[in-house]
Amino acid sequence: MSRADRVAERLAERELDLLLITDLVNLRYVTGFTGSNGMAVVGRDVRRFVTDFRYVEQAAQQVRDFDREQGPQDFVTALGDGWPDGELRVGFEDQHVSVRSHGRLREVIPDRVELVPAGGIVEDLRAVKEPGEIERIAAAAELADEVYGLLREQRLAGRTEREVAFALETEMRRRGAEPSFPSIVASGPRGALPHAVPTGEAIAPGTLVTLDIGARLDGYCSDCTRTWATGDLADDLAQAYELVARAQAAALAAVRPGPEGREVDAVARDIIEAAGHGEHFGHGLGHGVGLEVHEGPRLARTAETRLVAGNVVTVEPGVYLPGRGGVRIEDLVVVTGDGHRVVSGTTKELLTVG
Amino acid sequence: MSRADRVAERLAERELDLLLITDLVNLRYVTGFTGSNGMAVVGRDVRRFVTDFRYVEQAAQQVRDFDREQGPQDFVTALGDGWPDGELRVGFEDQHVSVRSHGRLREVIPDRVELVPAGGIVEDLRAVKEPGEIERIAAAAELADEVYGLLREQRLAGRTEREVAFALETEMRRRGAEPSFPSIVASGPRGALPHAVPTGEAIAPGTLVTLDIGARLDGYCSDCTRTWATGDLADDLAQAYELVARAQAAALAAVRPGPEGREVDAVARDIIEAAGHGEHFGHGLGHGVGLEVHEGPRLARTAETRLVAGNVVTVEPGVYLPGRGGVRIEDLVVVTGDGHRVVSGTTKELLTVG
Repeated sequence: MSRADRVAERLAERELDLLLITDLVNLRYVTGFTGSNGMAVVGRDVRRFVTDFRYVEQAAQQVRDFDREQGPQDFVTALGDGWPDGELRVGFEDQHVSVRSHGRLREVIPDRVELVPAGGIVEDLRAVKEPGEIERIAAAAELADEVYGLLREQRLAGRTEREVAFALETEMRRRGAEPSFPSIVASGPRGALPHAVPTGEAIAPGTLVTLDIGARLDGYCSDCTRTWATGDLADDLAQAYELVARAQAAALAAVRPGPEGREVDAVARDIIEAAGHGEHFGHGLGHGVGLEVHEGPRLARTAETRLVAGNVVTVEPGVYLPGRGGVRIEDLVVVTGDGHRVVSGTTKELLTVG
Repeated sequence: MSRADRVAERLAERELDLLLITDLVNLRYVTGFTGSNGMAVVGRDVRRFVTDFRYVEQAAQQVRDFDREQGPQDFVTALGDGWPDGELRVGFEDQHVSVRSHGRLREVIPDRVELVPAGGIVEDLRAVKEPGEIERIAAAAELADEVYGLLREQRLAGRTEREVAFALETEMRRRGAEPSFPSIVASGPRGALPHAVPTGEAIAPGTLVTLDIGARLDGYCSDCTRTWATGDLADDLAQAYELVARAQAAALAAVRPGPEGREVDAVARDIIEAAGHGEHFGHGLGHGVGLEVHEGPRLARTAETRLVAGNVVTVEPGVYLPGRGGVRIEDLVVVTGDGHRVVSGTTKELLTVG
């Protein structure tokens, strides 16, 4: 069953006749189109794809099994006609469509077509990966592992965070990938900021460095965090590492089909809270990864979605000690039929890279 | 007068009491905040800024002259209170706020607060640059010129488009910038696709290569296209180059305070049409550049906004010959009090880089 067929199946459950797909990531997922301007209308018997003159050739290569048409660059106007007969309930991606675009759609689309908020249909499908997608994600993860492997052989202390981030990203690009998000290299006290931006400060000896990188290869993302030492550590930092490693391993062991996201989150959070560091773990345990580096399902305190085979999620507890430093350890994990498979291949032993 | 003061001034013209700023680029412009989660409310006597725990320290550094508060990560909920007394008309950025977010805002915000579509207020201010912004844009343009300078000393023929794009982007990054958009390196027949993606194909001798790159430095973008030859050219390609160069120079000469965007567009378009190539120039003449690489004002067939001093626009006519190749020449130009200043410094003579 094609992805578009699966969309159509979901529409029936929501009593929708059609779905208007305008978000470019969802559009890529459903149609294969990688250009920057296009939309699709999908229903049981409808496979309509519109783009502008710049992408007509590209669409002919990429978008199979759809009726393709060329619209004006302001291609929403193409929706003035081409609809099946009768009264229609058409879903739109309300979490992506702006209030202004919605107003324009409402002007252009015939009155007999009701526009119904219906975000999340494609995102829900995307959260469960096909084997080919898992292969691509694993390849992106392997590429990031290679880059970590190179960095291990170098030194960290004395280089600036920015130099290290640049080196990591250049190696990804040399291998035909690009960063799936801006790399984090956060040393010393900056490691206590979960979203630190690399600075021009030199990395000190005898501290922790949080490295958080991901590759995007063939459209699919990876995401992997390691925290390395640049020499002997103060006790509080060494203990934080041990604690996070233990919490990460326990949460990982809980990843399988069945539990809700919040249950897996709780495994790590309970361990960190029991050690008295609950307030130092201020973010969720993990998130899905695929065409986007943040997608469903989430592993977090409020996440009620149950894990199913085919989910690909990060497991990334952290402990952040203000003014001292931080530890985060993150693996990328595929939920399999009876458990999980970790696709991050870099060791989680505490490495010292001086 | 601060940027927030100027926003407040515009609100009065639209009979709005306040503006809710949620778009991150607009938020950066008005408040200085560069994080990824925050919002501001601005009015005559209101300067309210909200972010989540991750960015509290950063906001303390960046966001001056605002009342700063920490909200939950789902920070919209902070808008449940904190409003001035009485009935209020509050503008929101309708071209950025999704239908779903608007629904959530409506739930959270008290009934006495009317939400009014008011997109474009900050964008209109951003279209007219301050001297400090122009300096930053010029610095980004100079950096791109340096990168072009390096490429001139190398060769093009025989390398793949992707190799050349990678080399250009690496040199930008080495200088502390990043590409403001994915670089275009389009050789031979691919030059006829205005938005070609660099391929693994080797660049042929005796053809044209369109190079379209921009740097982002300190938040501000540049954008510059050159088309170079890799050897002696067939007559049609050489003539296309001459035509585009002539049209570009003429349009550039028309850039000054006063004309509507469409009038400047017409200067180039008339020349290209008179030469029988009107159908081969399928895009607008140019666009504003600033914090975003595409912003206001536009130079295009339908653009009625008049140029004013402080606008920074591209002037980039092109001629695309299907199956043969393409030419585009693009300068970045500041509208000054009495004319313009070109900030792109790379020669527009037809260079041969073999």
